[in-house]
Amino acid sequence: MTVQTLTQHDLTDLRLVELHGSLTDPAMSSMNLLNEISMRYPAAISFAAGRPAEDFFDVADVHEYLDIFYDHLRAERGLTEREARRLLLQYGRTKGIIHDLIREHLRVDEGIDVPAESIVVTVGCQEAMFLVLRALAAAPEDVLLAVSPTYVGLTGAALLAGLPVWPVRDGGEGIDLADLRAQIDRARSCGLRPRALYLVPDSANPTGASLPRWLREELLRLASAEDLLLLEDNPYGFFGGGEPLPTLKALDTERRVVHLGSFAKTALPGARIGYVVADQRVSDGSLFADRLAMIKSMTTVNTSPIAQAVIGGALLKHDYSLRAANTRQISLYQRNLRLVLDGLAERFPPGSGVTWTTPPGGFFVVVTVPFPVDDELLEYSASRYEVIWTPMSHFCPDGGGERRLRLSLSQITPETAGPGLDRLAALIGERL
Amino acid sequence: MTVQTLTQHDLTDLRLVELHGSLTDPAMSSMNLLNEISMRYPAAISFAAGRPAEDFFDVADVHEYLDIFYDHLRAERGLTEREARRLLLQYGRTKGIIHDLIREHLRVDEGIDVPAESIVVTVGCQEAMFLVLRALAAAPEDVLLAVSPTYVGLTGAALLAGLPVWPVRDGGEGIDLADLRAQIDRARSCGLRPRALYLVPDSANPTGASLPRWLREELLRLASAEDLLLLEDNPYGFFGGGEPLPTLKALDTERRVVHLGSFAKTALPGARIGYVVADQRVSDGSLFADRLAMIKSMTTVNTSPIAQAVIGGALLKHDYSLRAANTRQISLYQRNLRLVLDGLAERFPPGSGVTWTTPPGGFFVVVTVPFPVDDELLEYSASRYEVIWTPMSHFCPDGGGERRLRLSLSQITPETAGPGLDRLAALIGERL
Repeated sequence: MTVQTLTQHDLTDLRLVELHGSLTDPAMSSMNLLNEISMRYPAAISFAAGRPAEDFFDVADVHEYLDIFYDHLRAERGLTEREARRLLLQYGRTKGIIHDLIREHLRVDEGIDVPAESIVVTVGCQEAMFLVLRALAAAPEDVLLAVSPTYVGLTGAALLAGLPVWPVRDGGEGIDLADLRAQIDRARSCGLRPRALYLVPDSANPTGASLPRWLREELLRLASAEDLLLLEDNPYGFFGGGEPLPTLKALDTERRVVHLGSFAKTALPGARIGYVVADQRVSDGSLFADRLAMIKSMTTVNTSPIAQAVIGGALLKHDYSLRAANTRQISLYQRNLRLVLDGLAERFPPGSGVTWTTPPGGFFVVVTVPFPVDDELLEYSASRYEVIWTPMSHFCPDGGGERRLRLSLSQITPETAGPGLDRLAALIGERL
Repeated sequence: MTVQTLTQHDLTDLRLVELHGSLTDPAMSSMNLLNEISMRYPAAISFAAGRPAEDFFDVADVHEYLDIFYDHLRAERGLTEREARRLLLQYGRTKGIIHDLIREHLRVDEGIDVPAESIVVTVGCQEAMFLVLRALAAAPEDVLLAVSPTYVGLTGAALLAGLPVWPVRDGGEGIDLADLRAQIDRARSCGLRPRALYLVPDSANPTGASLPRWLREELLRLASAEDLLLLEDNPYGFFGGGEPLPTLKALDTERRVVHLGSFAKTALPGARIGYVVADQRVSDGSLFADRLAMIKSMTTVNTSPIAQAVIGGALLKHDYSLRAANTRQISLYQRNLRLVLDGLAERFPPGSGVTWTTPPGGFFVVVTVPFPVDDELLEYSASRYEVIWTPMSHFCPDGGGERRLRLSLSQITPETAGPGLDRLAALIGERL
């Protein structure tokens, strides 16, 4: 007894139950499990990773973009050598140093017209989500509405801010407005305060759904009627296929939309640059962006100006249009989408009991099967068939997704798609 | 009445009282006020900025360090071109990619010997503080002990994590152990749970105090007896003057110390690279570092590998020893310290009623005057005398510091020191 106690003490410095609740939340463990399975089966073909394709990455670009931005500082902004050096290498402006370039990019590529002052440059879109949720979580009655299935990064940021997530049905088209209205009423009648609705209107992660234009307009009308803020996350907008639809922010005439953006898929993930557009006015006369910057000053102080310069250089090189610069990437993801959709059709004829979504673009296809899909099946799939995918239940912390799995197509190739789908078909065939 | 209501509605999208409490906390407003005064009086000589000196910054270094690290990945880690490219430009390991280099740096420069796995690379030391406080704030009874006066970044991170800060007297030598013991007892008898003690043992911000070696050893003994975690923040260790003292982590044999580090003062602030050493074992067998990484995955996902590569290259170039690489910086700060101390002695003879600390190094000198020092005096000093400094009350959210002001010496030069101190002397002379 004494020996055991001593050993226990010797091995333990901190007790898990005495650490923050987010660390033992199922949503956090789920992220960990998925990473861990990918690490344990490195030879498996993965339809799980949502990382962008690496085919066009080039380290020389980093040097070139840095030089372009540094030259721009001196030639176009009129900074002296010393001032430009200071801007790149010293501590800097909390809201960032490429906000004006991002403003132009949003104007050119998205038809979003906002003052540069309303943009906060962040360490990836994840920090942007955290800042907004930390700002909005003010009282125990505050809740966040989110279209379910929900991106796990949003669930995680909400856990850190202690903000409960209240699911709203996606209804197949990206959001079910009747359910949104019902959930707002239900939350309010429970004495709760829905602070905002989070959604990915274009090629959502994980469902792949995009809201049709009429639904975007209806949603904005509802947000106005209910005095609700909309958090629009837009990582996949360029890759939707077909004619791009206007973002919610482009349609927003009442400053109802906080727009979250990322350069991870459109430029370089390694720069870790995202941003938030927060042009809302706060009652003391300040901009919401400035309030988010105060929180940022206590989270990361400021985003690395060196990393910002890399993205700034990319924006300058392409005349602010990353849509034009992503022509090859757009084709690649479209090709991968066809590989997956055609491959599924070849392997699962009508009547097979297996169905799937057929989005015009994006990174994700969701497959529905007539048997339960869970972490155990994923583990079996990885070990027995060497193919990895994501159980949809991971995106539904409040239940759902039990017979569905998500296939991510961003990292597959013509060489891996066929064998990968063969393995998936063998797994499904075994279960049918 | 109706018109006013309408106008009010038109101008306001969000009410400040409905945003997170940190945004209206005096500590946050104080940060804002200081920044704002610096911006409003750009011509004033500033003894307020704690930024490192810029004399040795060079943009060419960024390119060189990137290349050194990229070469190292291929030549020494044996990565293929494709793997090295992916490591630099793709999403990556949450805990970072230069943890092994930081491990060597800690061994060479600080005599700290820890497994690389216990290091999490963060977006500056600020993110490291936030991760640790977010992990430790688990229940309403949790509080954080902190030596007062306290670095404002710590106060801010604690606000975001909702962790009350409980002040402990510094006693002139960096910490008053009798008061620490008393505060632990007092907190516990109130039903509170002190989770850790935060301090800057070397050249503290803002007091400039360094704990003598005997006090470090006593503090570790007390931490062991009271089962208390120590959060050691070490941004100024290289600049302490004289023979360096061992850090708490170097003396730590019981994994009592979480060590927070930064490359902002020793390499480049613009890389925004910090780290936390958390080798504590959690009761489920995990490392505390891995738990912090889970929180990081929901805050910033991972630290930009491009920014990490810049610091990695600097570490490789200097054989892991930034102490050796900082010889010129150490001399510069020592020169600035002499300029300030000699300048004060010239202007305030014994009996003048003005006294000041005489630290052997660091970035800060604290001046005590026989009249109240507050934000109003700072504003007056900036506008009437064009000299800026920091009221010590900003570092004492629970009161104190009313007759003291902090002079920061990192950004002054032989050209600005004399005129700056002349202006300060004129202000003080007017008040005496």
